[in-house]
Parts: sequence; structure tokens; C-alpha cells
Amino acid sequence: MNERTVPAGTDWAFGVHAVQGLLATAASRVRRVLIAQGRRGKQAEAVLALASAASIRVDRVPRAALDRCAAQAGFNGNHQGVAAERHAFALASEADLEARWPDFENPLLVVLDGIADPRNLGACLRTAAAAGADAVLLPKRGSAPLSSVAAKAASGALERLFVVEVANLARRLAQLRERGVWLAGGVGSADGVPYTEVDYRGSAGIVVGGEQHGLRRLTRERCDYLVHIPMAGAVSSLNVSVALGVLLFEAQRQRGS
Amino acid sequence: MNERTVPAGTDWAFGVHAVQGLLATAASRVRRVLIAQGRRGKQAEAVLALASAASIRVDRVPRAALDRCAAQAGFNGNHQGVAAERHAFALASEADLEARWPDFENPLLVVLDGIADPRNLGACLRTAAAAGADAVLLPKRGSAPLSSVAAKAASGALERLFVVEVANLARRLAQLRERGVWLAGGVGSADGVPYTEVDYRGSAGIVVGGEQHGLRRLTRERCDYLVHIPMAGAVSSLNVSVALGVLLFEAQRQRGS
Repeated sequence: MNERTVPAGTDWAFGVHAVQGLLATAASRVRRVLIAQGRRGKQAEAVLALASAASIRVDRVPRAALDRCAAQAGFNGNHQGVAAERHAFALASEADLEARWPDFENPLLVVLDGIADPRNLGACLRTAAAAGADAVLLPKRGSAPLSSVAAKAASGALERLFVVEVANLARRLAQLRERGVWLAGGVGSADGVPYTEVDYRGSAGIVVGGEQHGLRRLTRERCDYLVHIPMAGAVSSLNVSVALGVLLFEAQRQRGS
Repeated sequence: MNERTVPAGTDWAFGVHAVQGLLATAASRVRRVLIAQGRRGKQAEAVLALASAASIRVDRVPRAALDRCAAQAGFNGNHQGVAAERHAFALASEADLEARWPDFENPLLVVLDGIADPRNLGACLRTAAAAGADAVLLPKRGSAPLSSVAAKAASGALERLFVVEVANLARRLAQLRERGVWLAGGVGSADGVPYTEVDYRGSAGIVVGGEQHGLRRLTRERCDYLVHIPMAGAVSSLNVSVALGVLLFEAQRQRGS
């Protein structure tokens, strides 16, 4: 377990009872369960069974890594070799998306493909809410935790948003295309067409990638258009939430809403 | 001296020699000078003379306040009752703006009227640079310090931007209007016209206000248009740097650049 797998701003639950309780009553708020290597016995089995029933990922990690997480989180009790990484907010499932799909009329979707910083993730969600996006899709892996840091940056937007956690983003994007959603992926200045040259008036999805590497290859391949925001200067860039805002409000301008 | 007058993320210089050196060699990077109440003598007089020659504000403050600033900044030496609040970056003066004015052709200006958070200030400057703004105007008072926190959020944009510190913003805005600049002030959803209904193709200034209270009254009165970004939901709002990005890139879309 290194810094990349435990991003700053993660929310935690520690100890057998806290993790069991969370899995039993709010499994959709659990991102993954961590169990110390060598941790066995009835209690550990019970945690594993609950996680498995809810299809939640379990990682075996060195006990020292759990000690470190507890220290960072300011947890002074005994973590008992069991922890859960939590979302600050219950995410919708793909089944929820399927259930709601027939209600969408000409939807405007947002796809956040691997935003690594929780503050940026929160800022993107705030922007998506303000622009009236019908749903936001997040990949299950490779995204910042939807922690209290992200929730604070979202500035109250989480409660108004339909945020869906997606297991296989490339497959889900292919399905969206089959249903008539046109996907526009944001890329750097050198690639793609100017974002103002694309028609967003039908069912549309705006796809933006992580701060460092942008869209992943498979995500990029699923897009109908690659678009860029023309910028001044060779080294200019926009914060991802600002870029998302520029793309979404252009879409809404065209849609007349 | 309270928290409002010393915002988080301020950069400092402490001690007679450091402050004298800064005033002598880089006065444009000094925001204001602080001197402990009761501090007298030749050295203090020399600092006051340099500050006065460079038209830099001097505040007399309790010595305990300087102790607190030094502790917060991690300064362990003797501050000698003298400190300077620094910009991370040398700002241009209004004389510089006058000198450069004839070179502008159909300029796009940005006015930041009292952004209180240094990270937001930096994010706005990054956005202004990416959108190719010709100049950014900041009021001398009531704005977050252009500190290292702001510089980091600006992500390298400061070196490419012409940032002008303005003593009397309302008067400067009136002058810009006389020179044919059309000023569009961003306001909340309830007020103004939709931002897409304004013509930004001539000389234009985009004016945005602070996070809490928006545009100040006098600033608002100097604007030719008040514009809002239509948003979903009654309580929606955008981060000020996202709102600025949406307004600026709409202006650039209309200008075809």
C-alpha cells in the first residue's frame, strides 16, 4: 500500500465493529476494505463475508500500513487489523442508472475519468451540479475518494447530484453510445477539434480525464469526438473543473437551457 | 490586526535588514509594511522613509501581533518590530498600464474585485492566462495576497500575465469605459441578463467579485452590463475561477479567437 493507493483526504472506519456496521447498514458508502496480512478468525471472516456479499473489494495489507493510516487519520483506538475506506456520500450503482434511464430525456452526462485530487473531484461535482448535468459517472478504480475533502469542495452539490460508480468505464461508454449518447472527450490543445465546433444538442456526455495524464486510452477510443479548448500560450492549461465548466456551459448554451 | 487584515497564505519578510532590502530593491513586491507600536529610532525611520518614497502603506500594530505573524510563518529570529507583507510576484503599476495601453488592440481585460482566498485568486489568474486575457486588474485593498499559495494555484501563469494593482478601482473602471471598454460584471442567478446575450467582440472587461459578497456596489455601478450564468437548482453556485472561465471563453468564442 503506497501513497498512490491511499490518496490524501481519505475517510476511514477502523476496527471490526465499525467496519461491520458500515458494511451492514451503508455498504454503498464503502470504497474498499483493508485487512492486515495474517489477520484470521471469526470476526475477520464475518467482515469478509459482508464485503463479499456487497461486492466490495478487499485488500490484504501489512499491519504497519494500517497503523500508518490510523495515525494519519488521528485514530487512537485499536484498529484490530480491520479498516474501511469510506465515501462521504452514498454513490448510485449501475443498476440505479439502468432504473433511472427511461426517465432521462435528452440527457447531459458527465464522465470523470480518474480525477486524482479529492478537491478537484469535489470542484468538478460542484460544476456538474451547477450546469444541471443529469448524471455523473465515476470509475470504481483510479478516482480520488469521494471523501469529506471532496464533499467540502463540492460545496453542497453532492446531495443534488446523481453520481454513479461504474465498474468498467469503457464498456459503460460503449453502451451509452449504443443508446444514442454522443461522447465528447476533452483533450489537450494539440489534439481534437475546438470544443465550440461540436453539436451537443442531442443526448450528450462530456468526458474529462485526470490532472496528469488526461483521458485513458480506452476511454479516448470510446469518444465520438475529441475536443480541445483553444488557449493562449504554449504551456497554458486550465484546472480540470474550469475546463469541465467551459465545456458544460457551452453544451447548455447550444441546448438553450 | 485581526485575521481579516492578515489573510492565510501571506508571505513575509521580518527584521530591519530584510525589509529595508526588499523596499530598496523590489518595492513593487511589497504589499505593506508593519511596524510595532512604540518602535522608534534611526532604523525604523529609515524603513518608514523607504516605504513612503515607494508609496507603500505602513501600519502600526501591537508587538504581540508581529510575534504571532512570525510564529505562524515559522520565523524564529528577532523580527525587531519590523515586517513586510510580500507579493510572490511583482505587480505592474497603473503607470505601466498607461504605458502599455497604446499597444492593446481590442483588449480583453479581467477585473478581480476582492477575491479573498489566495487559492481562488491563483486559480482565477491561471484561468485568465489560459483564456488569453491582455491584463488583469486587482484592487490594492481587499484582495487576497498574491502569495506563494496564490502563485502555486496559478500554476505558472503569473509569469505570462500582466497583473496591475489599482488604487481606486471604481475610478479606473470609469476611465476604461471612457476609452471604449465595455464592462460586463458577473452577478448571481437572480440578477442581470444571461451572459450569452452580451456582445464581447469589442474592447471588453469581465468583472467578477469576491466569494462572499460578489461585486462591490461602486464596481457594480461602473459596469455596462450585469450578467449571470444560468444554473440548475436554487442553491447552485460555481467557484469564482470556474465562473470566470465560463465568461472568458464565451467572450473568446464570440471573438473567434
